[in-house]
Amino acid sequence: MIRIGICGYGNLGKGVELAVQNSKDMSLVAVFTRRSPETVKTNGTQVYHLEDVLDFKDKIDVMIICGGSATDLPKQTPELSKHFNVVDSFDTHANIFMHYQNVNQIAKENGKLGVISTGWDPGMFSLNRLYMEAVLPDGTDYTFWGKGVSQGHSDAIRRIKGVQDARQYTIPKEEALNRVRSGENPLLSTREKHLRECYVVLEAGADALYVEQQIKTMPNYFADYDTVVHFISQEELEKNHKGIPHGGFVIRTGQTNVGVQHKIEYSLKLDSNPEFTGSVMTAYARACYRMNQEGKTGAITVFDVAPKYLSTKSLEELLKHTL
Amino acid sequence: MIRIGICGYGNLGKGVELAVQNSKDMSLVAVFTRRSPETVKTNGTQVYHLEDVLDFKDKIDVMIICGGSATDLPKQTPELSKHFNVVDSFDTHANIFMHYQNVNQIAKENGKLGVISTGWDPGMFSLNRLYMEAVLPDGTDYTFWGKGVSQGHSDAIRRIKGVQDARQYTIPKEEALNRVRSGENPLLSTREKHLRECYVVLEAGADALYVEQQIKTMPNYFADYDTVVHFISQEELEKNHKGIPHGGFVIRTGQTNVGVQHKIEYSLKLDSNPEFTGSVMTAYARACYRMNQEGKTGAITVFDVAPKYLSTKSLEELLKHTL
Repeated sequence: MIRIGICGYGNLGKGVELAVQNSKDMSLVAVFTRRSPETVKTNGTQVYHLEDVLDFKDKIDVMIICGGSATDLPKQTPELSKHFNVVDSFDTHANIFMHYQNVNQIAKENGKLGVISTGWDPGMFSLNRLYMEAVLPDGTDYTFWGKGVSQGHSDAIRRIKGVQDARQYTIPKEEALNRVRSGENPLLSTREKHLRECYVVLEAGADALYVEQQIKTMPNYFADYDTVVHFISQEELEKNHKGIPHGGFVIRTGQTNVGVQHKIEYSLKLDSNPEFTGSVMTAYARACYRMNQEGKTGAITVFDVAPKYLSTKSLEELLKHTL
Repeated sequence: MIRIGICGYGNLGKGVELAVQNSKDMSLVAVFTRRSPETVKTNGTQVYHLEDVLDFKDKIDVMIICGGSATDLPKQTPELSKHFNVVDSFDTHANIFMHYQNVNQIAKENGKLGVISTGWDPGMFSLNRLYMEAVLPDGTDYTFWGKGVSQGHSDAIRRIKGVQDARQYTIPKEEALNRVRSGENPLLSTREKHLRECYVVLEAGADALYVEQQIKTMPNYFADYDTVVHFISQEELEKNHKGIPHGGFVIRTGQTNVGVQHKIEYSLKLDSNPEFTGSVMTAYARACYRMNQEGKTGAITVFDVAPKYLSTKSLEELLKHTL
């Protein structure tokens, strides 16, 4: 049994807990939190304060770190990789290489292995971008996100004066998807790729026109997109927009010879972004444990993990039934 | 530069030749054939008789073997793995484990590495089946093939008395695809998954009714399927059915919690089955060379190859631009 710890118990931590509990080759030792442990209600897992994590140095094979990429993971992943094999879902694309270097040095010095930036993007989508380019080098790939909830964009709307609550969906435009699938290799602007749809609950007496204007002109977040704003009641938001669905597409078209076209497409449609992300991290925790057992240390990503390390099946089963 | 040899120069060998010629990190040393070399016209590559292959023992880093799975590869891959790192596309699913064991023993004894059963199924589809199951264990996956030409089925039709030429397409049924995508986890019979469409050119005076009857009742090949037969002229077959397109779908639906559904879908749409298969084999030749350089010997499959070995990009490029 691979002994797993979870650091951080938000939506992602809950997703990992579910995934580990459903993995027959794993046991879930503890959840660690910065909150008062007695205030954290888990699905049956023991809760400890993060300060006590070193007491578990020899009781946990892999720590799955479920903090945020902005401030938690840049500190927690290197720090915890002094003492544990770790898996995280660091997803600030621009800083991944720096994060990799930080974790690599510390983990290596301590004989631990850290699998960084797992999940679905970065993660499963990255794998597909790499495989697609390797097997179809003369081509172009496109990544579309959605339909799904963007937490960052929802937060940005909530900060506008007069907004009580909000939920923002990123939606890939069907026309752009179809142009990509056709193999025409279009140059697509931001506006052409995705639509942003916002469901907004106003505070009593708020100015709807002002709010809509503030949303649609918000730089970086909305100004470059076609943005649709719907005003709804809190009740309707609770009823119809409380899920955290997401998904998307990676599509590559290219050729092996003049006029000989190929299309490769990978897509995800997820009812729950954190539960699926947690499930991916759990599979990579299995790989992390096994590769560290074989002597691998430092930082790695999904690109370094041979697929077999993710599976619970034997070599013979894999060759007979999966290959 | 990775020095590549090609053993066998049918459609697949030609596809590999193209792919290697388009790979900046590879040089194509020679094509080996059982035919008289002077009768084989390549796209510029030197041709030698297969009997002379051992003269190239120190001149080729990876031999890509492009024979058929029925009789060529079970002999050629073990035999050549005594002297070369090898890549093949052995695709008789029922015999892969035996083939693996044969190649593994001989390659290991000789310090060589053999990557067996590459291509797209087995190959890219297998990878997707493994990844999908690992990240969504509580679910079911389905593989659909087509729309594409089945060489074996086309051959079977050609053997019927009165048939001059034929081309058979395997077509996934849209209704079955949609039931799978919906997440209902249907039990699908052979007949429900794929349609077989046949384009047949009759010999002068042949009995069309007899031929159609023979096709539709042919055990294993057609009897269990809905089969549509079209009679056309040789001219029309040459004009509209000379390509070798193929493709298909791997779809997995499953859940991470009660009522929390996810769908993962991978699809290929290929203008040329042998050119794409050759391109995949070429990417795995790169991995084969690198992994053997690191000391890996024996037989492996796509499941043993960390994705990074397939890419020409540096670690830094991969982490900054692909992850």
